[in-house]
Amino acid sequence: MNKLKIWVLRLSHRPIRDKRVTTHLFLTARAFGAEGAFYSGERDEKVEKSIEKVNKSWGGTFKIFFCQKWVKAVQKWKRDNGEVVHLTMYGLPVQDVIDQIKASSRKKLVIVGGAKVPGAAYELADWNVSVTSQPHSEVSALSIFLHELFEGNELKKSFENAKKKIVPQAKGKKIEKMTL
Amino acid sequence: MNKLKIWVLRLSHRPIRDKRVTTHLFLTARAFGAEGAFYSGERDEKVEKSIEKVNKSWGGTFKIFFCQKWVKAVQKWKRDNGEVVHLTMYGLPVQDVIDQIKASSRKKLVIVGGAKVPGAAYELADWNVSVTSQPHSEVSALSIFLHELFEGNELKKSFENAKKKIVPQAKGKKIEKMTL
Repeated sequence: MNKLKIWVLRLSHRPIRDKRVTTHLFLTARAFGAEGAFYSGERDEKVEKSIEKVNKSWGGTFKIFFCQKWVKAVQKWKRDNGEVVHLTMYGLPVQDVIDQIKASSRKKLVIVGGAKVPGAAYELADWNVSVTSQPHSEVSALSIFLHELFEGNELKKSFENAKKKIVPQAKGKKIEKMTL
Repeated sequence: MNKLKIWVLRLSHRPIRDKRVTTHLFLTARAFGAEGAFYSGERDEKVEKSIEKVNKSWGGTFKIFFCQKWVKAVQKWKRDNGEVVHLTMYGLPVQDVIDQIKASSRKKLVIVGGAKVPGAAYELADWNVSVTSQPHSEVSALSIFLHELFEGNELKKSFENAKKKIVPQAKGKKIEKMTL
């Protein structure tokens, strides 16, 4: 897996309405090789705790930070030599821009919209990227983007200090409990 | 895009808890080239209507059917010469089995679990397939599976009779309204 450092920024999280989709989004970010995620909107300790619980059982060091002033955070990210990708159905097709994005080894922040995406996200982004130009899901858009970025190697990623691990089976379930 | 006919079966839908995730799942199925979806659990006309609305605006003929007796439906699917893929974190890695799955031109039903997946899903499946062995989201699992199955060609799929169409932009939004 290439060494690209990827973080995700989820905009405008609303605890009741978005709880499950945001959780799916963060778990996808974790499973597909991102370092961690920031989110704006409303603080949601339930979502944060459910991700921590996954880290404890399944390993790794995926981090979550709440960040209210996301525009400032993105501006700081850029000053720190980071680049910004914004996933939006209005952007340029992922298959057309992914090679260009991969060509730079600078850390990347992937902005994923919530309810209504402010114009600033489009302006701050180095790339506005679409995964199809159809309406679907920020969860699938993020997974396809990371899958293309990491060239499928993220599918084999292993997580340090896992308490349990799945042993893939043709039928049924097999979990290995790790003794530390 | 290859001519494989793909349908999705979403198990155990619960209208309040699952509304948004199931909608994201169906929209992902549609955007990534499936013909339609069945779902079991509780009937949910709101979800059905929101998909119909997307079809009307964005085109295509993606279909949704409620199906309570899903085991019987899957058995009939198999009698009708269809094959069954079950997406589960416990299955064999998608990267190891996708070539075998692609090698058969028979229609495929992709089972995607809900709250708790009954053992029958594992038993009825010709392939139990995992997209990573980490917990994440049925939405990302489905998108990666279809992306691998259609070899990325689904990203360029066009939808017939669309009323509007996005024109991809480096910055901002451009929608073309189609006059019929």
